[in-house]
Amino acid sequence: MNANDKQAVKDIVGAENYSDSLIDLVTYSYDASDHDHRPEAAAWPTTTDQVAAILRLANASRFPVTPRGAGTSLAGGVVPAQGGLVLDLVRMNRILAVNIVDRQVVVEPGVVYADLQKLLAPQGFCFPPDPASGKVCTIGGNVATNAGGIRGAKYGVTRDYVLALEVVLPDGRVTRTGSRCMKSVSGFDLTRLFVGSEGVLGVITEITLKISPKPLASRTCQASFATLDQAGRAVTAIMHSGVVPSVLEIMDQNTIRVLREKGGMDLPPVNAMLLVETDGYTAGEADYQMDRVLEIFRQGGAQTIDMAQSADQVEALWAARRKAGSTAGQLRPYNLSEDVTVPMSQLPALLTGIAGIVEGYGLPFVVFGHAGDGNLHPKIMYDRRDPEQVTNVHKAADEIFALTCSLGGTLTGEHGVGLAKAPYMHLEHDANALELMRSIKRLLDPNNILNPGKMNLDV
Amino acid sequence: MNANDKQAVKDIVGAENYSDSLIDLVTYSYDASDHDHRPEAAAWPTTTDQVAAILRLANASRFPVTPRGAGTSLAGGVVPAQGGLVLDLVRMNRILAVNIVDRQVVVEPGVVYADLQKLLAPQGFCFPPDPASGKVCTIGGNVATNAGGIRGAKYGVTRDYVLALEVVLPDGRVTRTGSRCMKSVSGFDLTRLFVGSEGVLGVITEITLKISPKPLASRTCQASFATLDQAGRAVTAIMHSGVVPSVLEIMDQNTIRVLREKGGMDLPPVNAMLLVETDGYTAGEADYQMDRVLEIFRQGGAQTIDMAQSADQVEALWAARRKAGSTAGQLRPYNLSEDVTVPMSQLPALLTGIAGIVEGYGLPFVVFGHAGDGNLHPKIMYDRRDPEQVTNVHKAADEIFALTCSLGGTLTGEHGVGLAKAPYMHLEHDANALELMRSIKRLLDPNNILNPGKMNLDV
Repeated sequence: MNANDKQAVKDIVGAENYSDSLIDLVTYSYDASDHDHRPEAAAWPTTTDQVAAILRLANASRFPVTPRGAGTSLAGGVVPAQGGLVLDLVRMNRILAVNIVDRQVVVEPGVVYADLQKLLAPQGFCFPPDPASGKVCTIGGNVATNAGGIRGAKYGVTRDYVLALEVVLPDGRVTRTGSRCMKSVSGFDLTRLFVGSEGVLGVITEITLKISPKPLASRTCQASFATLDQAGRAVTAIMHSGVVPSVLEIMDQNTIRVLREKGGMDLPPVNAMLLVETDGYTAGEADYQMDRVLEIFRQGGAQTIDMAQSADQVEALWAARRKAGSTAGQLRPYNLSEDVTVPMSQLPALLTGIAGIVEGYGLPFVVFGHAGDGNLHPKIMYDRRDPEQVTNVHKAADEIFALTCSLGGTLTGEHGVGLAKAPYMHLEHDANALELMRSIKRLLDPNNILNPGKMNLDV
Repeated sequence: MNANDKQAVKDIVGAENYSDSLIDLVTYSYDASDHDHRPEAAAWPTTTDQVAAILRLANASRFPVTPRGAGTSLAGGVVPAQGGLVLDLVRMNRILAVNIVDRQVVVEPGVVYADLQKLLAPQGFCFPPDPASGKVCTIGGNVATNAGGIRGAKYGVTRDYVLALEVVLPDGRVTRTGSRCMKSVSGFDLTRLFVGSEGVLGVITEITLKISPKPLASRTCQASFATLDQAGRAVTAIMHSGVVPSVLEIMDQNTIRVLREKGGMDLPPVNAMLLVETDGYTAGEADYQMDRVLEIFRQGGAQTIDMAQSADQVEALWAARRKAGSTAGQLRPYNLSEDVTVPMSQLPALLTGIAGIVEGYGLPFVVFGHAGDGNLHPKIMYDRRDPEQVTNVHKAADEIFALTCSLGGTLTGEHGVGLAKAPYMHLEHDANALELMRSIKRLLDPNNILNPGKMNLDV
């Protein structure tokens, strides 16, 4: 970006919504991954027209534009890999409509996930995906990454709730996709072309989301197992039983040890734990499903089974799972946090395989995740200042991705490709699929101005 | 197609899988809509390689190819509008894998919906969308049209269950999209670009579907109302209450009259009826939801409320709804059957608006449909041999589509655009969205060989 470009951006959004100060640029070099690259300027647009004007300018002057929400990407998704402008959408944060009868809300992309939940809860409704970063992440980021979360096994991911979008295309044209109806098959599914496209095909400026009634009853239980494999088999047995828990989380022995030793949590010294929640309109419905789960745990040799008897006990069971990532992160200055996912039947193989791989490199690691949809979070701690650790963490990642794909899995269940998984895309996708993705990118963004360098699309 | 093209197709699929006999070509001129156009040849490929070879040939020789399943399209979706070859996929009908732990099945496109259900039912699972043509329609057709059905309000549409596809692109390249995992955000959502694309972007040759546990308990009830508006208001009240019925169907006074007079069914002489099913793992869960619904019906002035007390009574309540379309179709030789859909709050306005429009043209009509997701099926009977009736049915359709779009609705909730809704696409989509669809079509199919003339994509 030259001085004219910067002045032009400043003119579009106003001086109060523009910065090229060093402190802002350093801040915008990062997201929640271990990638970074410094941008040349940052803007906080407040209207769709401003976004459109910026993209027209970027196309004319050929500077990169990286759209950004709260910056919680664990894949380098919002790191401005080729410099240019960071387009921070957090000031477009109005909730434009809440319509309970139509079961939908209309929001700007900068609305924080938790703020929407707070508004919906008193009316008995929710937007279910429940990403771990829900307290800070934005709905725009959820949509751009098709964010999953802790209730995915039963309630699906962001994609399942996006009815319609307003999108600014890379050339500055504004379009509306989808429909505010509960269903529509009118033309190609442009909405889902943009959902999960990680800001490389357009900038999402308005989102219509389907909302769901909040379950009225739930049951929560925690079980521990002597081996990770036993826990994995219990998960597949639950899937086979026909019960669909609203939560089915797993923690490995390293996670449990870190939570005991660093997190000061009162957990048994076991090798694997599962956290399960069932729900429904009625307590009987939640009980029926939990009874099936408990039967499976008993037959599967669970060492302990703790049923929460009160809201406080539910919170106590949840505390461990919620703190797993941040507590483990304290072990070394940097960490690689992945979200490999496999078909359910392959979960035991992935669990034991990851442990075998990372142990071989002598780095501290934990594995936890959303077992109910086959999505594991191996988190490997390392110190970037030690070249050997850097080499080893990348070798471990290479092997984990190769193992995952050999098990019929996917590189990323919910974090997105970004920079982190870009080099591995060929492991999962055939050459024709990759070329199709690249040709769609070239079709919409021939000058490659939108979030360049991501998803292995630049050829 | 010239004689060489026909011979080349015959060589690819074998003589036993090829026809250009008049009786076959006349048969393949039609689907379940009131559109028709005669193809020049028909082939029944049995492998992906054959499909790929045919598309390479079609590109070289520039003849149109129209993929087809069971031909149940109500929108002219599989009418070979520009002649050429009909590619009938019903002989690719193997169920390749049933994997309960992974909650998925892998099928070829020609598998009949009901055959898959029959296979899954003994294991306690199902593929939920439940299209009205389920006894004969194919899974390939379901995917190509993103078919909905009677359980859409709670269980969604075909799109929500498609995990992965094998697709032959228009130039004959074969690619795999998606993942066999319960979730994946690895690259653009190519799967959903093909779901609902009505055979204009590629030929789907293998489908991996997510399956769901069959609900163990259900309750069924039918209620009648003095006015259509009252019934519509009851539907919106149910949506507001947070209950999500697995079925919520509506029939208008004309449907009820036709079923009484032509179908010999024992129904009350009322102006509107609702059929509701609630479900869950437990009877208590189904009861809880049905109790809320019954409360709404009583407060909303229902004239009669019939709860089914046995499986036979459930069947009796269902019989009327199931026969509505075919019984009404007897009134005139042709009919226009639409699937306009609006946000739930607009359902009363659409119900009364459609009645007002069609009554003005003096043609017999019925309105029934999936009220639970705002999807109505106005069916207007006419005689094609009478030019005035033809003019009037089209004028009525024009007005119904205009009304629907003015209410924030969509032209098609589940049938697809095909030929029927192609002229109306501009009412729903802005110019940039339409151009984006057309540019994607040109990108994938530059010679416009796949199902040309559909969806208003040819410009």
